[in-house]
Amino acid sequence: MKFRTTKLTLLLSLVIFFIFSISICFAQINTRSEINIPDIPGYLTLKCDLHTHTVFSDGAVWPTVRVEEAWQEGLDAISITDHIEYLPHKEDVKPNHNRPYEIAKPRADELGIILIKGTEITRGMPPGHFNAIFLQDVDPLDTKEWRDAIKAANDQGAFVFWNHPGWRQPDEIPIWYDEHSELLQQGYFQGIEIVNQDSYYPKAFQWALDKKLAILGNSDVHSPIHNTFDLPNGKHRPITLVFAKQKSEPAIKEALLARRTAVYHNDLLMGEEQFLNPVFEQAIRILNPRVSIKGTSRATIQIHNESDLMIELTSAKTFDEISVPETITLYPGKTIAFQLNGKETTMSGTKQFALPFIAKNFLIAPDKGLSINLNIEVNFTQ
Amino acid sequence: MKFRTTKLTLLLSLVIFFIFSISICFAQINTRSEINIPDIPGYLTLKCDLHTHTVFSDGAVWPTVRVEEAWQEGLDAISITDHIEYLPHKEDVKPNHNRPYEIAKPRADELGIILIKGTEITRGMPPGHFNAIFLQDVDPLDTKEWRDAIKAANDQGAFVFWNHPGWRQPDEIPIWYDEHSELLQQGYFQGIEIVNQDSYYPKAFQWALDKKLAILGNSDVHSPIHNTFDLPNGKHRPITLVFAKQKSEPAIKEALLARRTAVYHNDLLMGEEQFLNPVFEQAIRILNPRVSIKGTSRATIQIHNESDLMIELTSAKTFDEISVPETITLYPGKTIAFQLNGKETTMSGTKQFALPFIAKNFLIAPDKGLSINLNIEVNFTQ
Amino acid sequence: MKFRTTKLTLLLSLVIFFIFSISICFAQINTRSEINIPDIPGYLTLKCDLHTHTVFSDGAVWPTVRVEEAWQEGLDAISITDHIEYLPHKEDVKPNHNRPYEIAKPRADELGIILIKGTEITRGMPPGHFNAIFLQDVDPLDTKEWRDAIKAANDQGAFVFWNHPGWRQPDEIPIWYDEHSELLQQGYFQGIEIVNQDSYYPKAFQWALDKKLAILGNSDVHSPIHNTFDLPNGKHRPITLVFAKQKSEPAIKEALLARRTAVYHNDLLMGEEQFLNPVFEQAIRILNPRVSIKGTSRATIQIHNESDLMIELTSAKTFDEISVPETITLYPGKTIAFQLNGKETTMSGTKQFALPFIAKNFLIAPDKGLSINLNIEVNFTQ
Amino acid sequence: MKFRTTKLTLLLSLVIFFIFSISICFAQINTRSEINIPDIPGYLTLKCDLHTHTVFSDGAVWPTVRVEEAWQEGLDAISITDHIEYLPHKEDVKPNHNRPYEIAKPRADELGIILIKGTEITRGMPPGHFNAIFLQDVDPLDTKEWRDAIKAANDQGAFVFWNHPGWRQPDEIPIWYDEHSELLQQGYFQGIEIVNQDSYYPKAFQWALDKKLAILGNSDVHSPIHNTFDLPNGKHRPITLVFAKQKSEPAIKEALLARRTAVYHNDLLMGEEQFLNPVFEQAIRILNPRVSIKGTSRATIQIHNESDLMIELTSAKTFDEISVPETITLYPGKTIAFQLNGKETTMSGTKQFALPFIAKNFLIAPDKGLSINLNIEVNFTQ
Repeated sequence: MKFRTTKLTLLLSLVIFFIFSISICFAQINTRSEINIPDIPGYLTLKCDLHTHTVFSDGAVWPTVRVEEAWQEGLDAISITDHIEYLPHKEDVKPNHNRPYEIAKPRADELGIILIKGTEITRGMPPGHFNAIFLQDVDPLDTKEWRDAIKAANDQGAFVFWNHPGWRQPDEIPIWYDEHSELLQQGYFQGIEIVNQDSYYPKAFQWALDKKLAILGNSDVHSPIHNTFDLPNGKHRPITLVFAKQKSEPAIKEALLARRTAVYHNDLLMGEEQFLNPVFEQAIRILNPRVSIKGTSRATIQIHNESDLMIELTSAKTFDEISVPETITLYPGKTIAFQLNGKETTMSGTKQFALPFIAKNFLIAPDKGLSINLNIEVNFTQ
Repeated sequence: MKFRTTKLTLLLSLVIFFIFSISICFAQINTRSEINIPDIPGYLTLKCDLHTHTVFSDGAVWPTVRVEEAWQEGLDAISITDHIEYLPHKEDVKPNHNRPYEIAKPRADELGIILIKGTEITRGMPPGHFNAIFLQDVDPLDTKEWRDAIKAANDQGAFVFWNHPGWRQPDEIPIWYDEHSELLQQGYFQGIEIVNQDSYYPKAFQWALDKKLAILGNSDVHSPIHNTFDLPNGKHRPITLVFAKQKSEPAIKEALLARRTAVYHNDLLMGEEQFLNPVFEQAIRILNPRVSIKGTSRATIQIHNESDLMIELTSAKTFDEISVPETITLYPGKTIAFQLNGKETTMSGTKQFALPFIAKNFLIAPDKGLSINLNIEVNFTQ
Repeated sequence: MKFRTTKLTLLLSLVIFFIFSISICFAQINTRSEINIPDIPGYLTLKCDLHTHTVFSDGAVWPTVRVEEAWQEGLDAISITDHIEYLPHKEDVKPNHNRPYEIAKPRADELGIILIKGTEITRGMPPGHFNAIFLQDVDPLDTKEWRDAIKAANDQGAFVFWNHPGWRQPDEIPIWYDEHSELLQQGYFQGIEIVNQDSYYPKAFQWALDKKLAILGNSDVHSPIHNTFDLPNGKHRPITLVFAKQKSEPAIKEALLARRTAVYHNDLLMGEEQFLNPVFEQAIRILNPRVSIKGTSRATIQIHNESDLMIELTSAKTFDEISVPETITLYPGKTIAFQLNGKETTMSGTKQFALPFIAKNFLIAPDKGLSINLNIEVNFTQ
Repeated sequence: MKFRTTKLTLLLSLVIFFIFSISICFAQINTRSEINIPDIPGYLTLKCDLHTHTVFSDGAVWPTVRVEEAWQEGLDAISITDHIEYLPHKEDVKPNHNRPYEIAKPRADELGIILIKGTEITRGMPPGHFNAIFLQDVDPLDTKEWRDAIKAANDQGAFVFWNHPGWRQPDEIPIWYDEHSELLQQGYFQGIEIVNQDSYYPKAFQWALDKKLAILGNSDVHSPIHNTFDLPNGKHRPITLVFAKQKSEPAIKEALLARRTAVYHNDLLMGEEQFLNPVFEQAIRILNPRVSIKGTSRATIQIHNESDLMIELTSAKTFDEISVPETITLYPGKTIAFQLNGKETTMSGTKQFALPFIAKNFLIAPDKGLSINLNIEVNFTQ
């Protein structure tokens, strides 16, 4: 409608191009996107990736890259877990199991990333691959027998977990071998990946619940992170959420041993109800929990989702007085509106409703969504 | 690295297509993106657009569309201000100055949008166009003489402001006519648009400061909002920030009359220091205000910007002990890192710094950025 | 690595903000995104939406908005088809069935959009809603009996089609009533919507194939288009592809009567094999159809998809000599790479392969994907 | 308007999550975005980056990453040019100047990327850093004296160019030293970077024009490419466009020696008019070059820009008969519309116009945009 004549010299225009190139580059390198998953009562919700690789085994990046990626993506802690036994770059990169940590540690300290020394014990199935983290020295784990390696890790007080249990199994379904029972009885592993990169193993999730293992979900990233996960389109690497008493390496270890973890994979959040329920409660807020409905007209409820978590709700019950949507999607960071409709023209007075829904992408077991209630009050008029 | 064989029937795939189309449509219509500009001590920061049009004058949308757009974009209040004198659709749309409000009000109530009854008095320059809002009845403003119209508005206790003062003036530079002095002396207008759609009038900003007028920035939108502003690419309509004691129509009026406003236009925030300073203070947080520097090495400071505001800082002072970046861009919703470098190898002990910067896109006058300090403490070691 | 000191005055920075706001606004309003769906031998592939609404019935936009939206989204032709019988705005907008066309036509001519005069005959089921397009005058269709309205449309030589046949039916599954048989026998309707807004009716698709009706997919848009379809995230309104001898209104009518149409809905393309096959052939190109494989090593094939169509291929056959991917996704506008692996170490010589795939989102019947071949030549060495 | 009830089991929903994660990952890794910059008569327009680093000097990625990034971003050719003299990883990565090429070559062959063996001779200023490409063996360039290194490169028939000439100079303005004159007289370097990463050196551009050096623009990328350039937001690394007789390594070398290059940096295209003019001509198409104007009414011209190049036009002349926009922005891949307005009511008859514009971001010299004409025909009526 209105127009402003703008007379710019060529020179000025070029200045603009420069400014833009500067700020964009800066944005890329020096910008961190926090992951908004709320803390829960009593615990900080730390975002961790405890399985990554570098050029020191079969990865494609220098160790500092893993720290910088983690900082940019909003992680609190990572572990570089290069293979002990598989060193395809050894002609060019001098084998040294402790070097990735040494190289990356100063950058981690500078950026405030908790870097946990770790490694991947890489053997055929059974028992398959195991990560050992919180190590002092990786070298003692470089043994001929896998039992010796896992024992050496435990001797250092490591937290040991079974990696991608379904990898290379038929249909990616994990198999529990006698060797795993043996290790479990010895207390030699304390966790299991139920998600690795783009694979989710429901069977491993159930094992973890039954056998009291901590659940983990990690990236197992080898390439630059952007080559593996479509970050600009809102995707993220799998993340192990650790509910820790403080933001420190010892607190992460304590929480892992106490099995206070959840796994965030694509739009799925997986973990025990005792953790997922408070995450949900902290994430959402009903903006207008009290509404009026006249006869069979409608009322609009607005819910704000403070978190980065997509939450898909499915109604678990119908009511005589009001109709409730079958599904509600609470988009991350957004406020959404949905309608309640009166069913009868004769209702009057105020009534409390605990509308029960299943958060179907908050899994408290492989096939079980978290049950939640939306508490509202309706004032019926005629 | 790992692969999962997925055998899907055609049917299943189709189901997926459907699901996606549902959720996306839902997202569009029923989703609100809140605008994160913090409240300031003592006041809520309400986001308002007090100048919009519909098919009832020369706009292209039904009045309810203005309410729905406002809700989706995170606004708290709008006014539909159709022209009194310019009714190009009158052959098809029955002229009725009060109808846009009447039609839109139920939808506004349902969605919790504060809808303020208004109109645009649309005369040649001088005095040009004026909006009158908080009206009870628009009809008395439909007069032959413009002085009568503006008087009629004031008689209803309206808040009256001069629209797009530079429109159709040479180089879009506003001109202050005798008629404006006359109106000002009578107390017949209380505000002025310093931004209208994509035009910013620095001269009007200075007038407002000098003559004690409230500043406003409004969209003057005629088309569907997406046709005028590139919302999906992070652009937004101009917004009048109103610092109100509560979220209500009377509170907005009280704040406007008290000149407690600011204007948010593209990446510019404009207003008096008393408002912009607390907005800045509430928006940012230094995550690690205490750092150590050894000799001439570097320390990294991280700042989180909680708001949706891009903030461009320029250093206002150099220091003998440390070098500070010339510019820092605090991206909306992000954490950014910047380096301090020690300048001498002989420093030791702890020192407090109030690093002075100009927030160059927070304008407290047409050519003056807001001065702020970043308070940090450096522990120097050797 | 390298750094350039940039000293900018505040003024200069502000200039930059302005420039950006200008160019973005311009981009929105005056920019058209062409839809890249290739022409096929003998015909132009015209993109049409033959079902839209305005404030003249129950829509929310002025008629010119429909033309501008169509131009921006890359359409060639639209019809505004306001309801005859349902006029909820009649208190404010003077009923006139021919006005939407009259108002929108000059804008359509200016922008090169083919605007087809139409209307929606809006009756209860049976027979439900029917669009009549290519009308000279809508008024004669405003009759008491629906049979008279449909006859009046046919008397004007209109193309008549059944809208959203599953709407408000149980589970949205369409029901064929005697009245539809009656109309079909009279030759009184020639097409059927198999897609309307976000609903796809497989049963209607099968009816169209069996009963020789043209298939259509239309938006039925009432709100501003951005409120209904998430265009910035790559979504699009349903489109009726018309394979026409030229870009003109008569050519579109001829093609519709000859049933040369397809429907483009989300990522689905639906139509007869005679149309979908040449679309596929024109859309993709194998960049390196001749490769060498040594023993059991791999070769990489690259395919470029020139079109805006996502194409999902599923392998339809296994081979003794080479392993072929189970699925290949040809992303719109991209080149993708996939691997062929040799299965035997003893192969030698050159062999032609017609690798059969099903394009599972190119539907030639409700449950049948298009069969295509990727023709390559492998030179086996040892 | 219409609604479909969708009853999905939890299981089905989970399947959907999986499918999406698969396809996205596939997209990232196996998808190439072609760069649409048209070929020009007689030559292919090859997209090259002739300056990149890996872990073998001070880079942060394995050599194969450089090839994969290049393929994904639509490049035709790259050179890995690790420093000879600066090897900060030498404790961990065994120094070997030829290894990056050897490691990356098989992946380049598989993906069809032309990999050119190169290196960076890295000395203090003067003469600064020089890249030597098309080498057979890098080792002979590892000499004590820089003159010997550059001579050794030339002895192998290398193409040698001066890198980032303004780097670490005051205000990043390059300085021409006697040593550069010496090298130039000997014919020992044949090109110069006018763009390196985010720095553009106008002075180097002018030198190249005056002294008959080939111009180059390269990324000098050290980190993963996504850490340096904001690719998802439409940014790109600097690219040396090589106008080659065919797509082959020898053809690239021939073109470089013949100075048939241009530089594509942010939205700038820089090069001689003989190359930029045909690029422009091939990139754009006036869709309706013949229009009618009645009196002082308007006509709309539509121009399609087939390329990925943003093109900013500024009007270079006014006309008595028609008013022409001061600026036109031809967005990449879009059709844009602009208006011509008649200036007089008395014009009649048909007239040809060659509307002169400056493409201000197509630089044929540091301060000179390309002159182009838009040829149209106006039929004036009254």
